[in-house]
Amino acid sequence: MSWTLGELAQRLGLAFEGDPQLRIEGLNTLEAAGPSELSFFANTRYRPQLRATRAGVVILSVRDRDDCPGACLLSDQPQLAFARVGEWFETDDVHTPGIHPSAAIDPSAQVDPGATIGPFVEIGPRSRIGAGCHIGAGSVIGPDCELGEGCRLVARVTLVKRVRMGRRVLLHPGVVIGADGFGLVPEAGRWRKVPQLGGVRIGDDCEIGANTCIDRGALGDTVLEEDVRLDNQIQVGHNVHIGAHTAMAGCSAVAGSARIGRHCLIGGGAGVLGHLEVCDRVTITAMSLVTHSIREPGEYSSGVPLMENRQWRRAAVRFKQLDRSQGRPRPKDDSHD
Amino acid sequence: MSWTLGELAQRLGLAFEGDPQLRIEGLNTLEAAGPSELSFFANTRYRPQLRATRAGVVILSVRDRDDCPGACLLSDQPQLAFARVGEWFETDDVHTPGIHPSAAIDPSAQVDPGATIGPFVEIGPRSRIGAGCHIGAGSVIGPDCELGEGCRLVARVTLVKRVRMGRRVLLHPGVVIGADGFGLVPEAGRWRKVPQLGGVRIGDDCEIGANTCIDRGALGDTVLEEDVRLDNQIQVGHNVHIGAHTAMAGCSAVAGSARIGRHCLIGGGAGVLGHLEVCDRVTITAMSLVTHSIREPGEYSSGVPLMENRQWRRAAVRFKQLDRSQGRPRPKDDSHD
Amino acid sequence: MSWTLGELAQRLGLAFEGDPQLRIEGLNTLEAAGPSELSFFANTRYRPQLRATRAGVVILSVRDRDDCPGACLLSDQPQLAFARVGEWFETDDVHTPGIHPSAAIDPSAQVDPGATIGPFVEIGPRSRIGAGCHIGAGSVIGPDCELGEGCRLVARVTLVKRVRMGRRVLLHPGVVIGADGFGLVPEAGRWRKVPQLGGVRIGDDCEIGANTCIDRGALGDTVLEEDVRLDNQIQVGHNVHIGAHTAMAGCSAVAGSARIGRHCLIGGGAGVLGHLEVCDRVTITAMSLVTHSIREPGEYSSGVPLMENRQWRRAAVRFKQLDRSQGRPRPKDDSHD
Repeated sequence: MSWTLGELAQRLGLAFEGDPQLRIEGLNTLEAAGPSELSFFANTRYRPQLRATRAGVVILSVRDRDDCPGACLLSDQPQLAFARVGEWFETDDVHTPGIHPSAAIDPSAQVDPGATIGPFVEIGPRSRIGAGCHIGAGSVIGPDCELGEGCRLVARVTLVKRVRMGRRVLLHPGVVIGADGFGLVPEAGRWRKVPQLGGVRIGDDCEIGANTCIDRGALGDTVLEEDVRLDNQIQVGHNVHIGAHTAMAGCSAVAGSARIGRHCLIGGGAGVLGHLEVCDRVTITAMSLVTHSIREPGEYSSGVPLMENRQWRRAAVRFKQLDRSQGRPRPKDDSHD
Repeated sequence: MSWTLGELAQRLGLAFEGDPQLRIEGLNTLEAAGPSELSFFANTRYRPQLRATRAGVVILSVRDRDDCPGACLLSDQPQLAFARVGEWFETDDVHTPGIHPSAAIDPSAQVDPGATIGPFVEIGPRSRIGAGCHIGAGSVIGPDCELGEGCRLVARVTLVKRVRMGRRVLLHPGVVIGADGFGLVPEAGRWRKVPQLGGVRIGDDCEIGANTCIDRGALGDTVLEEDVRLDNQIQVGHNVHIGAHTAMAGCSAVAGSARIGRHCLIGGGAGVLGHLEVCDRVTITAMSLVTHSIREPGEYSSGVPLMENRQWRRAAVRFKQLDRSQGRPRPKDDSHD
Repeated sequence: MSWTLGELAQRLGLAFEGDPQLRIEGLNTLEAAGPSELSFFANTRYRPQLRATRAGVVILSVRDRDDCPGACLLSDQPQLAFARVGEWFETDDVHTPGIHPSAAIDPSAQVDPGATIGPFVEIGPRSRIGAGCHIGAGSVIGPDCELGEGCRLVARVTLVKRVRMGRRVLLHPGVVIGADGFGLVPEAGRWRKVPQLGGVRIGDDCEIGANTCIDRGALGDTVLEEDVRLDNQIQVGHNVHIGAHTAMAGCSAVAGSARIGRHCLIGGGAGVLGHLEVCDRVTITAMSLVTHSIREPGEYSSGVPLMENRQWRRAAVRFKQLDRSQGRPRPKDDSHD
């Protein structure tokens, strides 16, 4: 698997500088790439690495050309071009379609002959697995699930019940979809569980990261529209609705019945409280908590900045004192507020 | 499976308004329910949906009666009444007790003949599984565990060792109970692992959400009293003690040896530091960090409110400056504090 | 399994006070220990328990001697001495090396005859399992992985692909290592996935807690140096580098390409943003967010203190107002800043 610089330029439709016969046999970071490897430059933080790179070819914007010591491919979107090349270099073992003899498949389940079912997989009653699906080892698919064409459950994924997915959905190991929502109602000093009668619907081309959980709806479904991208360790409560093309970073969480718009970016560890609405094209920065609905696109934050601990302790004490002045005669200067 | 409005009223012991012969065949949200479906109204946020609902019957409080366009069942606790009806409409595939031929069960383990053991389950030495238990596919139960009657491990649950559970405990997929606590002691610039010699005890009627972890004790046990309810993705450290009827929302965490009281509510993403005590009937709001013991029932919070990012940046800078004034001559107006 | 006080003192090389023939048959907490049990005192919070203990022997520092009602072993590092004794009392079922008949092992994989492979384990193409490894039930090891001598995958661990581990690495249940990093690039209003071509390298003596995830590199590897200790529910993004002897507490997270130094302590729920550098010997307190690189050893924090909710609401409102004064004529007193 190798291409010349000229071949790469042609396949990508990009201009280049350098010897068109230069042969590229792999991809690597600016720092580690050697003369037969391709790299890319998109984050200005790495300009020193660009200037020192030994990479055979670098994909970069024309404005960064002068910082590149060697050959280059010129692109307005270097990372996108690099992602495309990356796909050509990706190797995956080929799986022959078929069902591993150890799999436990309910007689009422339907598995397309073009699907691959790995070892130690259970498929429950009335579930349907589409053509080209790959169900990795140790996955458990409960009753009444549907997987469209080309879904991939890498390994040890659980679909509890009533999970319906579109095409090309990618689920990483440890994902749990369709577990009971957290529905409790107090009754005489104890908790009574609220039955969770809904399901989960997941659109085409969604990707769900390792150990992420998406509960099924209490009534009606929890919904991810198409092309939603969830990182690892995320929690999505029952009856949440997430709009198309929204991406959520690791350890973020959305509580029950919240509604997130399209093209949103939710930072790592951020949280959205239950029953809120977040409109399209909202960015929430890392570890912020959304405590009210957001009606305007834009970037939102909470939290306070990182400080050296002793300095922080003093500021924190002052924060606690902030409430005091309110109930009292206001100092003269506050009239400026 | 269907009931008339009159039958529902009688079974629930509730007054109703409307045609007693009206037949209800399912449950749904106010927004989606049709004329043969039942819904409920408990959160005032959804009053517009109540006014517009096409639901055949709505369970609601008498004070909301006038906002309901159709028939209704009158209850002081609409959500509780709805939870009860929900149980009648819940359907689950019946599992015949017995042991799947693929299961790997240690000869010294005891499995009650009334228990159901799914495929690809391992049960270790000296463990005991009570009557009516359901051990879902891919679960691993290590040595010296005990499960009381009617416990349910949905699928892919791990009980590492020395986990003793009461009756009717419900564990969702990906749960890990009884793993080594995080005990380290420095020795000559490296870490030495502290042996974790205790176990975990879980009371009757507890529910543990998907991918939640509860470590076993270092010495003595990690304990959940009865009717504790944990959502998904929660972390409970070694030797934590959680009182009866406490509920914790998703992604919250309790560090080692902390003690949480009874009837507490811990919000999503909240944290409790190690060795602290939280008394009964304490509520911690979402993403707050408990940094000192709490001796008085009530509601506690930390964090700062969500703001538009530019506004937040300015406030955050001012927060950093809050410490400065302390070590200096105080401005005159501060004397008001 | 029991030792006399005299034998313990000799094996540990410690001075003692009390009857050398006193026999110790187990370990327990100060509160629960009886006359034939050993305990230790290292956290001054538990001094009342020390004074009231019924433990046969307590390991403690000479300065705490007078608070101990019974016999004692004197150590400068009581917890370390206790950890050593703990190892002698730890019991584990012996596993005979060999491969469980249910395991699905690719013909091109190499399993050392001294390794133990549990039930329902899959091992993929070209992977190599060293001597003395223990691969617990339900684990999935993908292609091109290498495990050094004495690694232990407790149960249900997934190594997705290209994961290379040193010796004596301990992985708890639910761990996922080597899943796709979260790499996305926008293309015409949709997400395009960036291929993740790297792997993961993990040094000797690392320990990874339950349900923790470590993604593989996009280009090059995600790296944990030796003796790194990760608690449960942690997220480590692609191309992160964590230095030797660093410990991270539960629910913490490090975003892609961040670099953490050696001997760092990352508190529970803390986060480190992507591409940052944290130097050696840095402590981050619980639930803090690292938003800029840290060049100086020390302790760092963010967040605000826990407060009674009504008091907190007032302080939070004042925090929101903090930004206001900046763009306006500054009040006279602010000139002191």
